[in-house]
Order: sequence, then C-alpha cells, then structure tokens
Amino acid sequence: MREHSVGIVSPRSEHFDEPLNFACGQSLPAYELIFETYGELNATASNAILICHALSGHHHAAGYHKEDDRKPGWWDACIGPGKPIDTQRFFVVSLNNLGGCHGSTGPTSENPTTGEPFGPDFPQPQVDDWVDAQARLADRLGIDCWAAVVGGSLGGMQAMAWSLRYPDRLRHCIVIAAATKLSAQNIAFNEIARRAIVSDPGFAEGYYLREGTQPTQGLALARMVGHITYLSDDAMASRFGRELQPGDPDEAGTEAQEFQIESYLRYQGQQFSSAFDANSYVLMTRALDQFDLTAPYEGDAVAAFTQASCEFLVLSFSTDWRFSPARSREIVDALLAAERPVSYAEIEADEGHDAFLLPIPRYLAVLDAYLKRVQD
Amino acid sequence: MREHSVGIVSPRSEHFDEPLNFACGQSLPAYELIFETYGELNATASNAILICHALSGHHHAAGYHKEDDRKPGWWDACIGPGKPIDTQRFFVVSLNNLGGCHGSTGPTSENPTTGEPFGPDFPQPQVDDWVDAQARLADRLGIDCWAAVVGGSLGGMQAMAWSLRYPDRLRHCIVIAAATKLSAQNIAFNEIARRAIVSDPGFAEGYYLREGTQPTQGLALARMVGHITYLSDDAMASRFGRELQPGDPDEAGTEAQEFQIESYLRYQGQQFSSAFDANSYVLMTRALDQFDLTAPYEGDAVAAFTQASCEFLVLSFSTDWRFSPARSREIVDALLAAERPVSYAEIEADEGHDAFLLPIPRYLAVLDAYLKRVQD
Repeated sequence: MREHSVGIVSPRSEHFDEPLNFACGQSLPAYELIFETYGELNATASNAILICHALSGHHHAAGYHKEDDRKPGWWDACIGPGKPIDTQRFFVVSLNNLGGCHGSTGPTSENPTTGEPFGPDFPQPQVDDWVDAQARLADRLGIDCWAAVVGGSLGGMQAMAWSLRYPDRLRHCIVIAAATKLSAQNIAFNEIARRAIVSDPGFAEGYYLREGTQPTQGLALARMVGHITYLSDDAMASRFGRELQPGDPDEAGTEAQEFQIESYLRYQGQQFSSAFDANSYVLMTRALDQFDLTAPYEGDAVAAFTQASCEFLVLSFSTDWRFSPARSREIVDALLAAERPVSYAEIEADEGHDAFLLPIPRYLAVLDAYLKRVQD
Repeated sequence: MREHSVGIVSPRSEHFDEPLNFACGQSLPAYELIFETYGELNATASNAILICHALSGHHHAAGYHKEDDRKPGWWDACIGPGKPIDTQRFFVVSLNNLGGCHGSTGPTSENPTTGEPFGPDFPQPQVDDWVDAQARLADRLGIDCWAAVVGGSLGGMQAMAWSLRYPDRLRHCIVIAAATKLSAQNIAFNEIARRAIVSDPGFAEGYYLREGTQPTQGLALARMVGHITYLSDDAMASRFGRELQPGDPDEAGTEAQEFQIESYLRYQGQQFSSAFDANSYVLMTRALDQFDLTAPYEGDAVAAFTQASCEFLVLSFSTDWRFSPARSREIVDALLAAERPVSYAEIEADEGHDAFLLPIPRYLAVLDAYLKRVQD
C-alpha cells in the first residue's frame, strides 16, 4: 500500500526578514514559509522540482505526517519513489503560500503592528507575489534553477508566472488544468463564494478571531459552490444520481428524505469550514480572479510567452468545465505562436477539474513520460 | 413599441373551497389562485392555452399593469396580438402556482389554523399538485380541453405532467428547455441556494414574518447561484468579460475595484431578495428537485409517455447547460419510442437557459409555425 510512498515527512519552516513588497502596494516586513521536501538535492542542485498548490492546497503534498494518518498528502498520486515526480531522482519542494492558513504567514498570523491576528488586514497577494516568495525560498535552499515548476489549477498559474518572471530559473514548466486568466463565469462563482463568507454574521468584517465568532455557514457554502464546479455533471450523475437517503433531523433546513448529493455537499462544506480560514479563502479566490498572465502585455498571450525560455507541458481533462481543455489550448496556441517548445495532452477523464488530483493512469503515464526526459 | 402588446391587464382571483390534497400527504382546506387572461375564449372553449411558469415566475406573463410600467410581463416576447401565442386567436391563461408569493395561496398567506402566515408550514407542493390546481381553474373557466399547455423550465415539467395526468384535457404540449427530471448537478445548485437561505440567521427557521426579520442576504445569494446557471459561459464572457469597475464603498466585502460581473450579480441578488419570498423559493426549488416524470413508471420514460395522447413540441437552446439539449433529446427519444407525435428544434442561442424568455427570432418563428397549425 505505502510502498511507493515518501513515508513519514515533517514540515520545515524558514523565516524571512527582508520585507516582501506585494503587487497591491502593501508589504510584509517579515514572514515565515512552511514547506516539505521529498528526495535529496543533488550536488549541483539541478534536480529540484517546485510544486505550486491550488486554491485550498498547502505544503503537505506527499507522504504521511503520522503512522496512523488516514490519508497521505494531496498529490501523493504523483509524488513518490517510482511515481511520475520520482523522489528517487528529484528533490521536490512543496510550500504553503503566503496568505494561506497552514503554517506560512497569513491572516491568522500575528500582525506585528497590532499584536492581533492580521485578519482582513493581511495584504492581498497576487500570483506574482507568491512566485517572488517561492524564489526567495529557492535562494535559501540553494536552488538557482528548478528542473521543473509544476502546478494544477491556481498552481498552474504560478508555474506560468515563474516562466515569465524568472525565465532563467526553471528548465521546465508543467501547467495542469489552468488558464491564462479566469472567465467571467469563474469569477462569478468565486464572487458567490466570497459573498457567502462576508455576509455570514460570524465573519464580523473579517475580525472573527478577535470577536470569537466564525463564519462557519458561509465558508461551508463557499466550499459547496466550489465543489460543484470541480466535479463534472457526469461524475455527479454516476456517483449520486437521484438517490435518496434519510435527512439529518438535527440539521435545520433538511427534509426527512433528501438526495445523497445534498448531504454529501453539506458534509464536505462542514469539514472544510472547520479546517480552513475564511480570510484566506477570500484572499486566495481574489488572487485567482485577479491573475491575468497577459495583462502586462496588453492582453497578448503570445507577447507574454515570448519572455519564457523553458519547455512546457500543458495538460487538461476532457470533462473539466471550470478550466476546460479549450483554455489549455489557448495556452498551447500562444506558446506555439511564441515558438516555445510545448507538449500538450488532453486526458479523457470523467472527474471534471478534480481529475488533476487523481491517479488516472493515462495522466500519470503522460506526466511520467515527460519527466523521464527532464534531466536531473 | 407596444403595438403587439395585449396592453393593460388586470389579474383576477378565484377562491376554491374544496380541499386540495397534496402528494406529500398534507392538504389545503381552501385556497386562492391569481391569474391573468389574454384574448377571448371562443364559444366552444376550444382555443384556450395554459401558460405554466418557471421557478421564480408568476401570473403576469404579458402586457402591462399600469401605463407607466417599465417592463411588460415575463413572456411578453411570445404572447400578444400577432405574436407566436397569438391573442387574436387564443385565450391565454397564466396563473401563479400554489406556494408562490404573487397572490396565489402560499407561505405568506394566512394559515387558518393559526391566524399567522403559513411560513415554513405551507405544504410542499409537487408539480402534480400544481397541475391539479390548474385543472380546477380550467373547470372554473369552463375549459374542458386546452388547445395547448405551454411552459419553459419548471413550466415545461408542468406541461409534461399535464400530458400524463389529464391526457384528455390538452391537444398540444409545448415543452421548452426542460427535462424529465433534474440531474445531480442541478439538485446540487438548488441545495446551495436553499442552504444559503436557511443558514441566514434572518430566516428564523422560516418564521421570519412572525419574527420581523428577513433572510435578505441568503435569498440574494440563492438568486446569484441561480443566475450564473441560467447564463452561458459565452454570454457572460461577451457581456462582462473581465471588465473592472469601482466597487461600492458602502458594501461590505467589496474591493476598491471589482469585476463588473460581481456587482451585476450582487445587484440582481438584492433586487430579487426584496421581491420574492424565501419560503416560496425553498418550496419551488424542492418541487423542481423532486419532479421525476418517470418515477411512477419505474424510471421508464417511454412507459410514462405511452399515457399521453396529445401532440408535442420540444424546444431546447444550444448553450443551455442547466437544461441542455441532451435532456430535451431524451424527452424526444422517449416520445418517439412511445410513438407519440413530436416535433423538436434545438435553437442556436448564446444566452444559455435564459434564452427561453428572450425574443430570439428563430425561437419565435418555430413556436409561431407550430402554433399556426394548432386548431383554435
């Protein structure tokens, strides 16, 4: 079962004293980054791969924290000995981004100017700010140039941003189920998620930690909205159909009988709301909405990618309607027009956007084949 | 401008004293139905068309209530002199369904056993219950057999239910942008809408009228969710793209700059929440979720439609992803297998599910051509 696992891992933390200036104009005077590493850095530091996480992700991408952990890290399907991101060859670095809520400095951290948690006063990060912080972590670890920067969804946006912002610091860029910018529909779903959070009286304008409240219902709703959009219509149909089950009599607004999909979504929402910080969720969705790779190039993706000097692998999934294959093909088309080396595969998968997290054989095979020709 | 309008119309109301037994087991001892009629009933009462409304619809389908009304009824594009549902030929009846909040008995009406508004104690209607109430209204108006029963979305479900429940009481059934039952994804969106409402503290377990509160934020959120799913991705992209505009400084949780789609959705949500009853919205979405035309026939749509004896027109819209053309084709396939007369058209339209309300030339032309061969 765990034979291809990196096994028990422990997060590390690095403190940074040099202020980080965010694109929004605010800055963090000092900050912590929490991260995990899997495998060994070689003598020339040429075998390092950076993993960039998506909206609600974190640094724990592979392995287990304790022997009795029920689940491994979020991308254990792809990272480990003999897996596509092979820890027998590569030194893998996975961090929690600034503004998150899993150990890197974020809204729940102490604001040094007030002695209270930052809460809603944490600076709004952009994808570029995360990339800058990741570059400093690379410096600290002695990594001048990544063998590859890899990410799915919002993580894929970070990988693309690396290729433009630090073109000499990565040799390969692997962009999975992403887009150069969100569509209006994507933004609309995120706005509903944010509105659910900020209109929950427990949100207290973001000062819920100080007020001793929690926007539990709002955050649960936000997650429910996200969850629907990560699954395909077909995946939902085959998994839940219209099956009924008894409702929870202790839960307001549920019926004696309800559809399985209803209780499933509610359960997912509740789990998430007890594990994620609401201000972080607002910041992360805003960063996602505001990302536009082409903005500094007057909307021209070809001009943007002309700045890149690495090789690209772009992957999409057939039933992903949040970041559809069409959005990946836009990336590929721009890379081709910019005469950058690019490989592309659309993976047949029923699972919608969620597919990028799952052990889908053809997906793993394509990733494996590509990484086999990445020099370590 | 108003030359093809039915002009100024006034709603009528009918009181019914005979108890109506709902499928859920509860019953209403007496009730009111509010409705409008356009055109004249002929001597043989053979020219009557029933309009069934969708989720948030009502009886005011065409014309104006006052000279200075800014907008006509919700289906004015289709109903009027010289329009597809031609009021020079047909007598058109459009009612507000039971459980609604526009004048027919619903959650805001007085519960005779308590003297207070029904609130959450209003019986949960099913599509069949609405059809039964509509049949009694037909009796009252002296209409034995409708020339046609017509509806879009949830209204299309009512039209189909008519064809099975009262097969001798309609000659034509026009089903627009509908399905024999909702998919898990559709149910999931409705569950999020309900959850937004019931988790708003102002909902007060449905007794907000008694408590003097209102679940304004929850209802607004519910509408925002619905609104996204009624529009196509393309329609949103062409209408809003990623255009920015100043945020509302008085509105919590908005930024100095925000995307147009965000403020548009928020505005739509606010408008709706001041005009619609939250308990009605919960009831209507539950009726939509619970509708399954095939349930009494062990899931067999062909066996279901074998009960029908009318002719069918089925219409769908190319970019409708809430009730996609594939769902309409399922209806058509079942009708063909049941050897019922059916015409089908998929209309090219960018507007998603909303298209069924809009004056799209080809849509109006198809409807017009079909109704021209319906005898009045």
